[in-house]
Amino acid sequence: MTAADTSLHLVRAGIDTYSQPVVYMREDCHVCRAEGFAALTRIGVTLGPKSIIATLNVVTEAGWLPADAAALSEAAWALLQPRPGDRATFVHPEPPASDSAIRAKVYGQELTEADFTAIIGDITGRRLSELQMAAFVTACAGERLNIAETIRLTRAMQRAGETLDWGGAEVYDKHCVGGLPGNRTTPIVVAIVAAAGLMIPKTSSRAITSPAGTADTMEVMAPVALDIAALRRVVETEGGCVVWGGNLALSPADDLLIRIERPLDFDSDGQLVASVLSKKAAVGARRVLIDVPVGPTAKVRSPAAAASLAQRLAAVGEAVGLSIAVHVSDGTAPVGRGIGPALEARDVLAVLRRDTDAPADLRGRVLDLAGALLDLRPDAAAGIGRARAAALLDSGAAEAKFMAICAAQGGFREPSAARHRAVVTATAAGRLEAIDNRRIARIAKLAGAPGRKLAGVRLLARPGDLLRRGAPLFEIHAETPGELDYARSYAEAQADVFELRE
Amino acid sequence: MTAADTSLHLVRAGIDTYSQPVVYMREDCHVCRAEGFAALTRIGVTLGPKSIIATLNVVTEAGWLPADAAALSEAAWALLQPRPGDRATFVHPEPPASDSAIRAKVYGQELTEADFTAIIGDITGRRLSELQMAAFVTACAGERLNIAETIRLTRAMQRAGETLDWGGAEVYDKHCVGGLPGNRTTPIVVAIVAAAGLMIPKTSSRAITSPAGTADTMEVMAPVALDIAALRRVVETEGGCVVWGGNLALSPADDLLIRIERPLDFDSDGQLVASVLSKKAAVGARRVLIDVPVGPTAKVRSPAAAASLAQRLAAVGEAVGLSIAVHVSDGTAPVGRGIGPALEARDVLAVLRRDTDAPADLRGRVLDLAGALLDLRPDAAAGIGRARAAALLDSGAAEAKFMAICAAQGGFREPSAARHRAVVTATAAGRLEAIDNRRIARIAKLAGAPGRKLAGVRLLARPGDLLRRGAPLFEIHAETPGELDYARSYAEAQADVFELRE
Repeated sequence: MTAADTSLHLVRAGIDTYSQPVVYMREDCHVCRAEGFAALTRIGVTLGPKSIIATLNVVTEAGWLPADAAALSEAAWALLQPRPGDRATFVHPEPPASDSAIRAKVYGQELTEADFTAIIGDITGRRLSELQMAAFVTACAGERLNIAETIRLTRAMQRAGETLDWGGAEVYDKHCVGGLPGNRTTPIVVAIVAAAGLMIPKTSSRAITSPAGTADTMEVMAPVALDIAALRRVVETEGGCVVWGGNLALSPADDLLIRIERPLDFDSDGQLVASVLSKKAAVGARRVLIDVPVGPTAKVRSPAAAASLAQRLAAVGEAVGLSIAVHVSDGTAPVGRGIGPALEARDVLAVLRRDTDAPADLRGRVLDLAGALLDLRPDAAAGIGRARAAALLDSGAAEAKFMAICAAQGGFREPSAARHRAVVTATAAGRLEAIDNRRIARIAKLAGAPGRKLAGVRLLARPGDLLRRGAPLFEIHAETPGELDYARSYAEAQADVFELRE
Repeated sequence: MTAADTSLHLVRAGIDTYSQPVVYMREDCHVCRAEGFAALTRIGVTLGPKSIIATLNVVTEAGWLPADAAALSEAAWALLQPRPGDRATFVHPEPPASDSAIRAKVYGQELTEADFTAIIGDITGRRLSELQMAAFVTACAGERLNIAETIRLTRAMQRAGETLDWGGAEVYDKHCVGGLPGNRTTPIVVAIVAAAGLMIPKTSSRAITSPAGTADTMEVMAPVALDIAALRRVVETEGGCVVWGGNLALSPADDLLIRIERPLDFDSDGQLVASVLSKKAAVGARRVLIDVPVGPTAKVRSPAAAASLAQRLAAVGEAVGLSIAVHVSDGTAPVGRGIGPALEARDVLAVLRRDTDAPADLRGRVLDLAGALLDLRPDAAAGIGRARAAALLDSGAAEAKFMAICAAQGGFREPSAARHRAVVTATAAGRLEAIDNRRIARIAKLAGAPGRKLAGVRLLARPGDLLRRGAPLFEIHAETPGELDYARSYAEAQADVFELRE
């Protein structure tokens, strides 16, 4: 059987199956029948030098798929990038080389550097199925990666992508482990630290399960989808940037693993540390501040959990050439007033511009974090970082630097506000004890965040406030009346997003 | 927002996504935009009383999907069974109730009966994604289910389906844990045991990853897709049957879990025991013989592993009202001469008909197993089962009973032979030490088994044989020249499917 006999013309299915490449093949096509593919769920696809293993879906109602053609899902099309008329070859796939390593981890064995290299290689080479990736993620969850394995995984993930070289300069970076809506400190911290003359090439994520990621919030104010050359230009000019990391392939395995980790949502310090530090190492950072909000509805639930995570971060950081400082912060309530890209951007600008009604809690956290970063300087006198950060903010130096960074990234734009809004009020009187982070985030997402940049929630009460019945709790912002109604229905059905006690 | 606003007309996508229900929705459809579904990967679908959670794939090239419609994959269509003009409602899905139980198992905790009931309920209720099922399967793999948990899982799986009631009769059953190509003892054992006057309502699987399942082999000779009423009629008339279990919903959770377990292929005694015994309990069995072939390329690799499995089978069996006997057999080589549905059927008939060239190893195993089953009779004198089984076989009683069972199941048909064949010969001289079970099975599958019923491999040499160079090793059978070539290319590229030593 010659190669031509196992080839098919490629068409684009126009079906988005997220990161999983899918091939659609007709049940009655000659290749499918000759090869016996219909019984498979996985299929090897080769186009010139590019090879992947995709999931096979057999098409019975063949109207839209021509004879002698196979259709590719969006992910498969992006990976293989066929030109018009291209034919790909289809084969029975061999089990991926990392099969035995994944199996070993499932059975509780310790994995070697070679094991992690094989696994990460098969992930970035698009040879693992979602099921195999889910098995790997599950097998590593909880406490099932020790520190040595976390180091190996971190290194394997870093080696899978680019590493930026800043020529020996001291490079600073920060990261927040998350779980706290509205905690949009990064753009302000970067502005302060760059205004202090330090180099801070900050890359951030878009939201995956939250109402806004830092990249979404920043994008309301300036372009973030820069490539590596543009990132360098901004940082070499202004000292800092806030760009979208997903465009940079700094840790390509992380981008793929995250799509499995997030829906499953298992706690795994090993995976979290490897994800964060592989990206920090790849961006060429040297001194890194990790913000760990702690609270019952945050990602890290207790001081003991924070301490354990901090220890792992420090140990792995050291092994990959990073000097890590961990800052434990309060994770009990959302930060600032806005939750959603534009609403958070407005909080950021309010703090930078020293508006009188700027959220004091956001300002406070920003100064804590920027101060801690400034204290990482090798020559710094201990403990004066926060005061220096406050001076740079209050003098307007941070605001000017932020505007300069936005201009360098492609141009600043002022955030606008959503047209459709509704205030949700207290159904009884009492002191506001707590705000459920997860539920308020859900409301913001039902309102349309982050896809709708102007959508989200604006908080109108803070923990500690004494409220009468009917007092405003929060305002839902939405870009369409339908989304507003949807979020409001959900909010009104929830008894205790805002926990009030008499 | 009224229900009508979140509803769409349903069309059939004609795309087979296996057991995972998928909904295809246009990116620009009103429901997708209003609800913000495009960011989701999972979506709730309700049609009348039926509700599932499906994976959402967003369609950008919308040619084949009309406006105001959503398309369903084959699995989703089969679950919801829309009538023409039906509109379904689409909602953001709540996390499944078993989420916390799965998470607990991932973190290594022991699960309760309520936990397993919730998990099995969400599986059969089609609320878990493939990723969540993969996480559950992974978390239970290796030794991570103890005996108490295995009992709870077995009970939960049994309760999820029908249990047949035989009115207090002594009901016998057998099962082989597998991994041994050609080991098609069941049709003959059932015939012998039924000829002895015992009741044996045997249900069997189709192949999932092997070249033939018992149901595939039996189906060459008689219909197997009987429903429960038909199964009862056959058993009440003839005492025994060999039918396809997949049609009977005896353990619906098992049917769904197996589609995740097989591609992942992790060893898990807990899952294996729960899978097997839930089906035996559901069919109303009381006395069960489990055949465990042991060998380096079988499913169970060592006597110690067999002993551990046997202990778990016995303990769980007792807890669910089954009297289990385990028969450890030789798993070092394929059994009989045929591998593939029709080729194995011909071996079965050769043994039943007492043909002079019937495979002696298959006959021997059949007598061992049938004998062991007869020895399970409460009133039986110990150890005479095998002799009784031999007498029933040699007298022709078993053959007559088999023909009667086939007639009762819908009619006997004589297996034919494939038209396209090729013999593979020894490339050097030597004694045949071993045949690699996994590789010979692969060759049979590449030749087209089990989809092509006549396809597979006919063994022409046995371990122990002294062979000269050029001696025939095996003959590949295929229904098309292309499949024959494909299998032959693979076979000729493999150096040591047949391990010869000088």
